[in-house]
Amino acid sequence: MKKKCPLILISNDDGIAAKGLRVLIDILRPLGDLVVMAPDSQRSGSSCSLTVTVPIHYRLVHREEGLTIYECSGTPTECIKLARYTVTDRLPDLVVGGINHGDNSATNVHYSGTMGVVIEGCINGIPSIAYSLCSHDPDANFEVLCSYIRKITSMILKSGLPPLVCLNVNFPDIKEFNGVRVCEQAKGIWTKEWESCQRGVDANYFWLSGSFTDKEPDNEKSDHWALEHGYVAITPTTVDVTAYGFIDELSQKCKQIDF
Amino acid sequence: MKKKCPLILISNDDGIAAKGLRVLIDILRPLGDLVVMAPDSQRSGSSCSLTVTVPIHYRLVHREEGLTIYECSGTPTECIKLARYTVTDRLPDLVVGGINHGDNSATNVHYSGTMGVVIEGCINGIPSIAYSLCSHDPDANFEVLCSYIRKITSMILKSGLPPLVCLNVNFPDIKEFNGVRVCEQAKGIWTKEWESCQRGVDANYFWLSGSFTDKEPDNEKSDHWALEHGYVAITPTTVDVTAYGFIDELSQKCKQIDF
Repeated sequence: MKKKCPLILISNDDGIAAKGLRVLIDILRPLGDLVVMAPDSQRSGSSCSLTVTVPIHYRLVHREEGLTIYECSGTPTECIKLARYTVTDRLPDLVVGGINHGDNSATNVHYSGTMGVVIEGCINGIPSIAYSLCSHDPDANFEVLCSYIRKITSMILKSGLPPLVCLNVNFPDIKEFNGVRVCEQAKGIWTKEWESCQRGVDANYFWLSGSFTDKEPDNEKSDHWALEHGYVAITPTTVDVTAYGFIDELSQKCKQIDF
Repeated sequence: MKKKCPLILISNDDGIAAKGLRVLIDILRPLGDLVVMAPDSQRSGSSCSLTVTVPIHYRLVHREEGLTIYECSGTPTECIKLARYTVTDRLPDLVVGGINHGDNSATNVHYSGTMGVVIEGCINGIPSIAYSLCSHDPDANFEVLCSYIRKITSMILKSGLPPLVCLNVNFPDIKEFNGVRVCEQAKGIWTKEWESCQRGVDANYFWLSGSFTDKEPDNEKSDHWALEHGYVAITPTTVDVTAYGFIDELSQKCKQIDF
């Protein structure tokens, strides 16, 4: 009986104390046995980074029927790697990252530790979903997200995902959504990325900051457009980053070089 | 006259003292004005990670005609962001990452800080190339790579790259190459990823380790196959990670849900 209950592995990048993680646990409790392995501190912007110079430690912080919670000194990606190696007794049926406090749509997909969680699950053949709310408020109100997250998660638990594809789900910070759109990653760049943080006479200190500039603000297919217009944005995301469309042209160019 | 010389922005993830960086500088000197902004310490496995809890600092360490070198307390990705904001007087013509001490082909593309350099350049519209040698030896012999790197770099300086596409170039650790292959990212996973590192009675300490298992070892198109068979592997890599092929199916599935 126990074995038939879906095993859902959860992590995030805001750390074990984040409200978004607690809310996600509450939402997913009815859907399966939950194993949480979350970073012991804030790890926003971790991307898929790994720790190479120090060992990683984990410890149990809570256990009850259907829910086990661990904290880990590693990155979000390592939380998934280490949980699979140490504490899950079988391959999880699902990996879920979040709920992130902040927007992971568009170019942010590359920097996101929440996506680091999900990309790691996906590489290892586990259907994986990242959930993010476009608000950095540590006490953000996640209530309106709950039924959406439960329904999307149930759908993926039931039907799975294609190989090498995971989901990046972002919610606008509003009280009622206009609907759900399946999107493509918006193309854009970050600008005004640094704020001076002078220390004494040394002006070479900076805080990372910035704002996102959508290069195609009228592209109704993009996740940034969807969020700007009040929709939940689901961006299917591949971990196969080969630029297939350029292989032939580049091959021709390389043939002309006398290496 | 000065303005017409290509501006090449260089970084890495092995840090400012790495031999691979010194070799790369020597190789690229004849091709343009070089600005180097490298991490002040080892940053392997940084992916596209960002620093969010402390300010970032940079300082000049060397300047001569055509070559300026800075070190930076940030991640490889931040080295590119900060160099563009602080020390380059125009958009670089090229971003180059490396030469990495270690294999960045296949699944490694997601964890690599060298690719963090190059993805950041690419997102910002700059043709960008990562070079890696499949050897972790700090004193690796890069001699056989030199003419390949100079020729590939010259080609890209001349012809550019399509929008949102960068190059991930990996060299096998052998004395003579069988040729150059334009590849796709090998599909595979890391296994045996953790080594116990018990501390007193606490067995929950681990070193990240592991080995790569190619799931399609006979796929002659893959970068891992190329490297295993003595070829230089050039994998064109996209920063648009949308799984376009799944959008329609997922849209249909979402329409069946009563959100």
